[in-house]
Parts: sequence; structure tokens; C-alpha cells
Amino acid sequence: MEKLQLTKENNHILSLEKILQPIRKPLEAIENRFKDCVASENPVIQEMVNYVFNKKGKRIRPALVFISSVIWDSPDQNKIIDLGLSIELIHIATLIHDDVNDRSELRRGVDTYNKKWGNSSSVLFGDFLFCRAFVILAQMGNLQIIQNLSKTTSEICEGEIMQSFLKKNYEISIDKYLEIIRYKTASLIAESCRVGAIITDQDKETQDCLYRYGLNLGMAFQIYDDFLDFHGTEELLGKPVLNDVVNGYITLPMIHLFNQKENGNREQIYQQIEEMQKDNNIKAIIDLLEKNGSLDYSLNKAKSFVTQAQKELEPLTNNKLKDSLLEIAQFIINREF
Amino acid sequence: MEKLQLTKENNHILSLEKILQPIRKPLEAIENRFKDCVASENPVIQEMVNYVFNKKGKRIRPALVFISSVIWDSPDQNKIIDLGLSIELIHIATLIHDDVNDRSELRRGVDTYNKKWGNSSSVLFGDFLFCRAFVILAQMGNLQIIQNLSKTTSEICEGEIMQSFLKKNYEISIDKYLEIIRYKTASLIAESCRVGAIITDQDKETQDCLYRYGLNLGMAFQIYDDFLDFHGTEELLGKPVLNDVVNGYITLPMIHLFNQKENGNREQIYQQIEEMQKDNNIKAIIDLLEKNGSLDYSLNKAKSFVTQAQKELEPLTNNKLKDSLLEIAQFIINREF
Repeated sequence: MEKLQLTKENNHILSLEKILQPIRKPLEAIENRFKDCVASENPVIQEMVNYVFNKKGKRIRPALVFISSVIWDSPDQNKIIDLGLSIELIHIATLIHDDVNDRSELRRGVDTYNKKWGNSSSVLFGDFLFCRAFVILAQMGNLQIIQNLSKTTSEICEGEIMQSFLKKNYEISIDKYLEIIRYKTASLIAESCRVGAIITDQDKETQDCLYRYGLNLGMAFQIYDDFLDFHGTEELLGKPVLNDVVNGYITLPMIHLFNQKENGNREQIYQQIEEMQKDNNIKAIIDLLEKNGSLDYSLNKAKSFVTQAQKELEPLTNNKLKDSLLEIAQFIINREF
Repeated sequence: MEKLQLTKENNHILSLEKILQPIRKPLEAIENRFKDCVASENPVIQEMVNYVFNKKGKRIRPALVFISSVIWDSPDQNKIIDLGLSIELIHIATLIHDDVNDRSELRRGVDTYNKKWGNSSSVLFGDFLFCRAFVILAQMGNLQIIQNLSKTTSEICEGEIMQSFLKKNYEISIDKYLEIIRYKTASLIAESCRVGAIITDQDKETQDCLYRYGLNLGMAFQIYDDFLDFHGTEELLGKPVLNDVVNGYITLPMIHLFNQKENGNREQIYQQIEEMQKDNNIKAIIDLLEKNGSLDYSLNKAKSFVTQAQKELEPLTNNKLKDSLLEIAQFIINREF
């Protein structure tokens, strides 16, 4: 597989822990700050609040905020931590709503909110976290950031809605797929980088260049995530493999497969895959995708977005900032979860 | 019934149209402003957007914003209209999520979002409207208002979550009921009044007095709404009567009924009502409530909150503002929908 080759090319296995070393403290501070900012007088809601950080996510978005803001050189660390926290809360809120919509029972190896508290309360609790994110942003007091993040969050919703309309739609094109993931994933990752630069008053050129880096990084992130749905293991992913297929989401590897004309028409291949999935024949699905080069195609697509992301950083002059972002970009397509 | 008596006391039937006459233009402007502010490139989402104002609601919240801001004397009408629009969007978003959670199929006489587009898309579309409301607020540029409204919106979610945990819980006390409706309804109505005063830079005393008015008005509004669930007609309400009972929500008339010790224990009465409801014997449920004075009790409770709301206005000196708010308070407990 390409994956191993790529790791070898870079001659070392990038560890997220090592990359995030310079921002370890602010990343850890998020949880305490969350406890200070988000509380409810109602004991059951407080129980739901306590469950938010029950299992650590990758914290990619706050990490990007912290790196883009060059937090280690800033006197405004508390403000930047609050910004990272708000973005992580927006992200968590969208995950909670996703899990309701997909009826998922497992996320990062633990029960989802809907599994534990039911659909209605989970929808409302997601709303609650959205609102709390905006309470924190309003207290921070930067209108430009509030404007950018509310706009981005509405784009995420649009992306998710588009995606839900495309369920089981085997006519979807690669362009449409790319448009959807730009809305639902890349926009918030891009904005995480830009607001990091805004909060520390970096010049407009830097803001825009970080945004473009983030947009490409976000595209790579989602394409690789969708690739992992076929290529990962349940143990590492913290959720079942072929989760997307089961939920009817058609992602890049499948679209590539549909595009291979020698396979017959799209409908036939889709029915074939549905049969395999019903028989729980995961290996047959993966074999079909591998035989047609669809997994390699996806991985290469992710790689090319990473290359573009790294290219966008060329104008930057702060080497520590640049190196961290280059490393994160490498990590994105070398992770196993 | 008390209701007719009350109308006679005031010697005229208050028409909402007449009360809202001084703010008719800004109320009408909301819809056009919405079309300018909220659009999506995706045709299906745009279709959902177009459905937002398909049927006119009462627009109580924007009306309160406009009156509290004394919009007719303000040079900043466009800003105030945007504020009214954002609050109406927040309100509509919560209604969309409510309908998903209650699996309602009818709202204001037309199909709900979940009926038309399914649960997942409706949850996401509610999120989308929330975000768009904050985009508009951020463009308006008043941080105090963003802070107040994001806090209030998170209170609404808390109220809704508390309410969902209390479904079919016949042990609920009147105090708990009042706490829930303060969170889920009164807080946003109160804030609508306060932000109206904030946006036109009225003094702190006026802001606070309008907030207290709104809080009491909001309590009356919800109690009367819950009363109408037993007392209205499907034609006027635009949704089935006894909708709350069917959904398992226990509201003030029922809590009052449970509190009458001579009726036996709460569990027995609740089972009795459930039986009547299963038999679709609406008349028997209403008779039971009337016999025990539970509907009159609720109506009186709503009246006493209206009296308190009106009392809170005493310090105000602007008579046109004061009169409009006094009239709205009267309307709240004289409406049939």
C-alpha cells in the first residue's frame, strides 16, 4: 500500500504527540477552561456536560488555532485558549448531531450521546454546546472572529444537509463530493487557522495564506478519513469499519470505483456492494476497491491536497510556525485513526 | 369561563393587528431582509429556506424588539429590523428542533420540516438557521447583544432538555414547571425586550425594567399556550388539541389536577388520563380538568403574570412604548391561537 511507502519517504513516523509538544500546555488547558465556562444548574445536563471530554479527540482544530496564533509568543494565551475551546465545542456539537442522524452508537470507542441519552436530548445538547461556544466567543469580544465562525458553522450545516441528500446516490460526481467535504469539514479547519492569525493581529496576507493552507489540509483530512473507513481497524478507529457504507454515504473510493466503466453501470456495482455488505463480507468490498485502484486513488488525492497545503505556506517567514504546520499536514495522511 | 369575563373587563377585544399597527412596516420588512441575508447555493437548502416564512407566525418576539427599541423614533431602523429577524430565526430554529423531537407533523396548519424533509435534514436546517442568526448579529456588531442572546439561546436548550426529561413524570411540581418555562420560553421573550432597549442605548434602568416585563410576559405566554392545548380548537391552533398530552408533556393544568388530593394518587389520575386519551375521549379529559378547577387555575396564573408584567412597566415614562407593551400583555391572555 501507498501508505507505508509514504511513511518511509519521510523517513520517520510522525507522532502527533511530538508535533503538538510546543502547544501541549494550552491543549491541556482547554479542559479546565471548559469546566469553568460551561456548567448547568440542572444535574442531568451537567452530567451530559461532564461527558464532553470523556474521551480525548485528536484536537486538530484547537491545535491549528494555537499554532496559527503562534501562541508560544503571545501575551494573550487565555484568549487564544478560549478561541480553541469554542471551535472544539462547535466541532463536538456537529459530531453529536451527526451521531443522532446516523444512529451511531459508538464514537472514539465510547457510547455516543444518542446511545446514552436518546435522540431528542442529544439534538438539544448539541444546540446547547453551539450556543455556549458563541457565549465564549462573545466574551472574547472579536467581532470579525464571531462573524467568520458563525458563517463557517452555517456552511458545515449546509455540507451536512447536502451529504444527507446524497445518501445512496450512486450518480454523485467527484466534484460534488469535493464540494460537500469543503463545506462540511475543510471550511472549519481553514477558519481555525485564519482566526488564529486574526486574534494575534497578523497581517492580512498571513491570514489568507493560513486559510488556504487549512482549506487544503481539511480536504486531505476528510478524504483520508473516508479512506480509513475502508482501510482502518475498529480498534484504532474507535468505531466500526465500513461505517459510511452501512450508513449509505458514498465517498471517494466508491465514486472512483463507479467511474471505472469496465465494471458495468453504477447501479449494478452499488447493488453488488450492498449485497457484500449485507453478507458482512468486508473483505470482498475492500478487494474490489483495491483491484480497481480506488483506495490508492483516494490516498493520492489526499496526498495532493497535503502537497498543496504545504505549498501555501511558502510565503510564511516564521519557521517554527511553518514547521509545525508542515508536520501536521504530514500527520494527517499518516495517522491510523 | 374566565376568559370571556376577562375580555369583557377590558371592554374591547384586543386585536393583534391593531396593537402592532405602529410597527407594521418593520414587521413586514423582516421577510425581505431574510431573503437578502439568508440564501444557499444549494437548491434543496434554498427550498428549505423559502419555506421558513411560508406561514406567518405571531412574530411576538420581533414585535417586542421593535416596541422596546421605540423603533418609530430611531434613525437605526435597519439595525433594529436585523435584530428582530435574528431573534425570530433563533425562535424558528428551536421550533424546528421541537417538531423533530415531538415527531409533530403539523405546525401553524402546514406540514413541519420533519414531515417534509425528514428528521436529519431538519435538525441540520435548524442548526443552519441558528448560525445564520448569529451571522446577522455579528454583522450588526453589538457584542453585548451577541453575548446576551447566545446565553439566552443556551438557556432555551437547557429548558427543552429539562422538559424532555420530565415527560410522563407525574411527580413534577409547579415550581419545577415554572422553572422549565422560564428557561425555554420566558428567557428569550425577556431578552427580546432588553436587547431592544440596548440597541437604542436606553438607560440601564429601562433595560432592566423591560427585561422583567418580558420575563413575566413570557411566563404568562407559555402558561396560556399550555392552557390552549386543552381549550383551543385544531382550526385556530393550526395543530391538534391535546398535542402536549399525546406527547407526554405534563403542563400546569395537569399538575394542578394531580395536586388535588381527593382525586387519589398522581399515578392513578395519570393512568386514567392516558386511558381517556387512548380512547380519544378528549371531552372526558377536559371535563375532569374543569371539574377540578384546573383550567381556571392555569388561566388565573397566566393573568397574575400579566398583571406583574404590566406592573414592571410603571417606571417607564414613554407613554407610547408603555401603552403598546400593556396591550401586548393583554393580548397574550386573550388570543385564541
